[in-house]
Amino acid sequence: MGDPISLTIYRNMIVNCVKIQVRPNRVEDFKKATVANHNESVKEPGCLRFDLLQDASDPEKFMLYEAYESNEAAAAHKNTPHYAVWRDTVTDWMAQPRLGTNYNIVVPTDKSKW
Amino acid sequence: MGDPISLTIYRNMIVNCVKIQVRPNRVEDFKKATVANHNESVKEPGCLRFDLLQDASDPEKFMLYEAYESNEAAAAHKNTPHYAVWRDTVTDWMAQPRLGTNYNIVVPTDKSKW
Repeated sequence: MGDPISLTIYRNMIVNCVKIQVRPNRVEDFKKATVANHNESVKEPGCLRFDLLQDASDPEKFMLYEAYESNEAAAAHKNTPHYAVWRDTVTDWMAQPRLGTNYNIVVPTDKSKW
Repeated sequence: MGDPISLTIYRNMIVNCVKIQVRPNRVEDFKKATVANHNESVKEPGCLRFDLLQDASDPEKFMLYEAYESNEAAAAHKNTPHYAVWRDTVTDWMAQPRLGTNYNIVVPTDKSKW
């Protein structure tokens, strides 16, 4: 018999990937604002990861890799003050609307690996 | 003065994202083969993450999120037996060639967070 609580948490874990194209003159501003968002987001109880990546072949392209323990935790992120500040700060710095994709997690299934 | 060894490791960390579209009748086979690849890949000394995700809106679309401590570690992955088995197994199950993107890591900068 497994642990039903852990199993429930695993089944609910999700990842949201957000692709962002930043205006050339705002790349450093964007990084600074998003690192600030990262620093607060990882403190959220339901946030498992909040990685900021920069495309190795195009420094104006970024990806956020956000993992949450549930859809509710992902929704709660969008109600935080740091998310609102980030969104309002970076909106005009984007060369086009950001593109998000929602994923279910196949592996790792162990929450401690997140 | 920081720790020059840790700093070097941080600067070298990378993420490779691979997007894969699987033929409809091979989705479960693909998951099984890729979980097997995951189980071996995370044992590689330079592999920091090897997440397999399934698109929540299209179960035939997958993403691999592979983090390595260096480009050399990423290259070493492609020389492993489990990578060769996976590649040869899944090639004919893909609806189109897989699409990889290489990223540099902005945050988290602490290797222990990976």
